[in-house]
Amino acid sequence: MKTVILCGGSGTRLWPLSTNEKPKQYLNLFDNQSLFTKTVLRNKQDSLLVISNKSHQKIVEDLSPNETSFIFEEIGRNTAAAILFAALNSRPEDILLILPSDHLINNIENYNACIDKAKEFALDDKLVTFGIKAQHPETGYGYIESNGNDVISFKEKPDFETAKSYLKAGNFYWNSGMFCFKAETFIREIKLFAPDIYEECLKVYNKSENTDQKITLKKSDLLNIRSESIDYAVMEKSKNVKVVPADIEWSDLGSYDSLYDQFNKDQNGNAVLSEFISLDTKNCLIINDEKEKMITTFDIEDLIIINTEDAILIGKRGQSQRVKEIYNKIK
Amino acid sequence: MKTVILCGGSGTRLWPLSTNEKPKQYLNLFDNQSLFTKTVLRNKQDSLLVISNKSHQKIVEDLSPNETSFIFEEIGRNTAAAILFAALNSRPEDILLILPSDHLINNIENYNACIDKAKEFALDDKLVTFGIKAQHPETGYGYIESNGNDVISFKEKPDFETAKSYLKAGNFYWNSGMFCFKAETFIREIKLFAPDIYEECLKVYNKSENTDQKITLKKSDLLNIRSESIDYAVMEKSKNVKVVPADIEWSDLGSYDSLYDQFNKDQNGNAVLSEFISLDTKNCLIINDEKEKMITTFDIEDLIIINTEDAILIGKRGQSQRVKEIYNKIK
Repeated sequence: MKTVILCGGSGTRLWPLSTNEKPKQYLNLFDNQSLFTKTVLRNKQDSLLVISNKSHQKIVEDLSPNETSFIFEEIGRNTAAAILFAALNSRPEDILLILPSDHLINNIENYNACIDKAKEFALDDKLVTFGIKAQHPETGYGYIESNGNDVISFKEKPDFETAKSYLKAGNFYWNSGMFCFKAETFIREIKLFAPDIYEECLKVYNKSENTDQKITLKKSDLLNIRSESIDYAVMEKSKNVKVVPADIEWSDLGSYDSLYDQFNKDQNGNAVLSEFISLDTKNCLIINDEKEKMITTFDIEDLIIINTEDAILIGKRGQSQRVKEIYNKIK
Repeated sequence: MKTVILCGGSGTRLWPLSTNEKPKQYLNLFDNQSLFTKTVLRNKQDSLLVISNKSHQKIVEDLSPNETSFIFEEIGRNTAAAILFAALNSRPEDILLILPSDHLINNIENYNACIDKAKEFALDDKLVTFGIKAQHPETGYGYIESNGNDVISFKEKPDFETAKSYLKAGNFYWNSGMFCFKAETFIREIKLFAPDIYEECLKVYNKSENTDQKITLKKSDLLNIRSESIDYAVMEKSKNVKVVPADIEWSDLGSYDSLYDQFNKDQNGNAVLSEFISLDTKNCLIINDEKEKMITTFDIEDLIIINTEDAILIGKRGQSQRVKEIYNKIK
């Protein structure tokens, strides 16, 4: 089994903590470890392949164990292409476990059981996706409607009313972005449903040089490849998909509100990364990235307070999806 | 007439903007001028004497016009001593206009009329204080109960109920900390009511050297002097006091709430010193002392947000008296 960690994504939703130079997966948010490192440690892989943007080569190499293989893309072309590069980089019978680099999983026992289950399906030539049991009517994720391990349908991000109906129905799962299949299974299916992506990726891959288990793919070549998600290019079209429901205390940490949920709180309900001095301060998320600077507060509650070298962000808890608007306003 | 500007006071209530190194009077809060500079410019003095802590010598010299005289104290001994030094530094018949360096006065026409009125009383050998008509039941100031220009009594900082009764009565004024009298009048009265302060100050003053209109008073000498306010040492005891009611749009800028009141607001009620990027942000005071850093906000209202090199302060508007508690917690 080969673990493939995808390190794409710019993580604008955690700006200013997450930046293009240092995206979310490289932040030490929990246990003084990066989410990338936690992903590596969570998986006792036979082998590890990391697919990353070329601009993060230094940081990701430093965090990776010896014997890691790397594919560096000078520009990202979304998950369909990245995963196909992983498959092309593998033996046909290799079972690939495809993982985002920036998610949190707290129930390792269940996680390992899910991986074992997925491996069985993968050996049986299936494309396996992992479904997170919906906890609330989230509108930010795609959903998988299932009957046991069989997929009935994939659903795009729903509106709130639709999300509520999914939650009520009980057989809808959040699409976690984790997958498992044999390399040859994925290649066969993408040839069928996205032949253009297959052809272009194969050309780009065959042109590349592999030195010391490091492959760099050039921007000028990559730009010929259609940028598409694995969900849209393959999973939603294939009849050969299984879903493994995964009760693994998962979070994609996709917003400051979800960060607040995951952090430990003090007796006043504050989730605080770094020392601070406060009077009557309740239920706030406070993250300070400048150790020599002090954050002090009085008579506030339900605020998100983020300080980095570049910027200070202050907003209302529960509204952290607006960070993206702030980010776009700045650009 | 000789203007005497008192630059004492550490201004902990505007921490972290105001610090021991750079107290409130030297901050460029309005019109890109320091409050000290505004005080100098407001008074078209015949001569100017500045009394400052020795540690601020460089900053206050740079801000003062040519021909300014200085008395530098290595340690502050409160206003009774400082004003006596000013009197000892003057001719007996000089009329002294004693002014704090860190207040805001917006009605200059009325201000000048008040000064003229005070001068008349001073020539008639009176100690003159300036009373600000109480605007709200403030518990942070002393009050002067008056009958026209005659003082009935001085009142210590009242509790809220008492302050409300003062406001209702109509003949109670806030004690502004501005005074006017002849040098000889003040010396005569302080000899009478605080002879120990007079004796010690005289000794210290006579030991000092006056070079280029600059006098430095040594800490070891100053420590022999009782630290007392002019109000307590002289004004409250003398029968020779007049009050000039001053309708001059005065603020002592003694808190972030009073700063907010004085600043111009944008269309959302925000008082903002520096650029910022916001979504749905209302009635906030936002001061950013780091020009290269951006403050961004969403879905907040009624907050005080202060950023300096040393610290970030975030609190609720209307509660800014708590800054002093924060400051004490840090020390």
